[in-house]
Amino acid sequence: MKLATIRVDGRTAAVRVEGDVLVDLGVPDVGAVLAGAEVADGKEYAVVGADFAPLVPRPSKVVCVGLNYRNHIQEMGRDLPEYPTLFSKFSDTLIGAYDDIVRPAETSEFDWEAELAVVIGREVRRADERQAVDAIAGFTVLNDVTCRDWQFRTREWLQGKNWDSTTPVGPWLVTKDEVGPRPALDIQCSVNDQVMQKDNTGDLLFDPVDLVRYVSTMIRLNPGDLIATGTPGGVGHARKPQVFLRGGETVVTQIEGIGRLENRVSG
Amino acid sequence: MKLATIRVDGRTAAVRVEGDVLVDLGVPDVGAVLAGAEVADGKEYAVVGADFAPLVPRPSKVVCVGLNYRNHIQEMGRDLPEYPTLFSKFSDTLIGAYDDIVRPAETSEFDWEAELAVVIGREVRRADERQAVDAIAGFTVLNDVTCRDWQFRTREWLQGKNWDSTTPVGPWLVTKDEVGPRPALDIQCSVNDQVMQKDNTGDLLFDPVDLVRYVSTMIRLNPGDLIATGTPGGVGHARKPQVFLRGGETVVTQIEGIGRLENRVSG
Repeated sequence: MKLATIRVDGRTAAVRVEGDVLVDLGVPDVGAVLAGAEVADGKEYAVVGADFAPLVPRPSKVVCVGLNYRNHIQEMGRDLPEYPTLFSKFSDTLIGAYDDIVRPAETSEFDWEAELAVVIGREVRRADERQAVDAIAGFTVLNDVTCRDWQFRTREWLQGKNWDSTTPVGPWLVTKDEVGPRPALDIQCSVNDQVMQKDNTGDLLFDPVDLVRYVSTMIRLNPGDLIATGTPGGVGHARKPQVFLRGGETVVTQIEGIGRLENRVSG
Repeated sequence: MKLATIRVDGRTAAVRVEGDVLVDLGVPDVGAVLAGAEVADGKEYAVVGADFAPLVPRPSKVVCVGLNYRNHIQEMGRDLPEYPTLFSKFSDTLIGAYDDIVRPAETSEFDWEAELAVVIGREVRRADERQAVDAIAGFTVLNDVTCRDWQFRTREWLQGKNWDSTTPVGPWLVTKDEVGPRPALDIQCSVNDQVMQKDNTGDLLFDPVDLVRYVSTMIRLNPGDLIATGTPGGVGHARKPQVFLRGGETVVTQIEGIGRLENRVSG
């Protein structure tokens, strides 16, 4: 099953994707569906031309993982880490699957990071393996767009990662029954049709189940929370020479069997 | 004016503090008051024995600042930084002014950090100085209780700072007209009546107005958002020998003219 949040008639609506059709579920967003709001099939809309909102507009947490692809860690000459490196994004960073990525005038190093995101389906704390699997509603696509100059201003990454309206997420949640709890799927990011990142989510050092277990040791995870699982090699900052996003470029972020984001860079 | 959020009759309620009395404002929490919900005076409760909830139960952001007291930076032998170091807390870390601080079994280095917290009163982005002053509703007291062992597991601090139900905030918001936008007030933290931290909020390198300007450059601030402005010297981790919190101890965090938190450490 695929679920999405769209903008329609000046509001948002949770919808179920049925082929080319979106079925209104009568609740405002996928976060509400996951939290257990009562749903009922209503009006139908076409997928083509639909205005996708952030999949969950206001999750209680967007947890992000640093270096997590084995190939990328090894190509950087680092040892595999014992623990995942975690940081977070505020929900005001999130935009829809086809919204413009708002490039701030304050950065000159605006970079892409294609990621598989875990969507939490039920509250969980100190999950064991089975509970972690059960807590995963499914997966979506996210691009952790980053201002590298701000990321490295201080020793904490937060300020490179938390610019308003920079982080596309969607277009939909693909439920776990379609891809399993540890999907091994091709992930790719291209800028103006040039492929910049290409890897497989099976290469994750800490997989979705591991991450739910680890994060939930610290803090409860709630329905609608997102865990962005990290990005593979090929970011602009690590290229020689470095390449960064410019206004007018188009970023396409896609994961086989999950979905595809297409976002113009504004500014 | 002082505003608080209390638990009463199985719900939460925003209240105005009038001497020894709390006046129910008819909305669920201070976040709703700041967001502009219509309020009307209702039932009254005694301050004594009131059950204070987190001041804002679910802010869209809890932004925290690292090293920010000049004395503390200098005593650590560091240069004054050019930019504030920022990290964040999830709202599920927050507890009320007299709630137990839940000490996790997974840490052996559970530490205190008394802080002045800015409470945002209106949406603002890329604030200039006047807009930053206007966006500050007032101040409250927060203790950024930290698992040091987890903080230093990786290069990002998040996982030391985001344990469920560890961060008391309150008991109330004191509005800016009472203390000004850059309050210089004595701040203190004691553990079982032993004073561990003692400083003055006038010693902040980046003051509340600076912080609203800096953070809002990146991302909108919303009514009810919190900025914890950093902690002075005297944390347990920096003591010789080191001292950490144990179950059964009582942490008192207070700022002159703002308020006082008193929390037992559970576990």
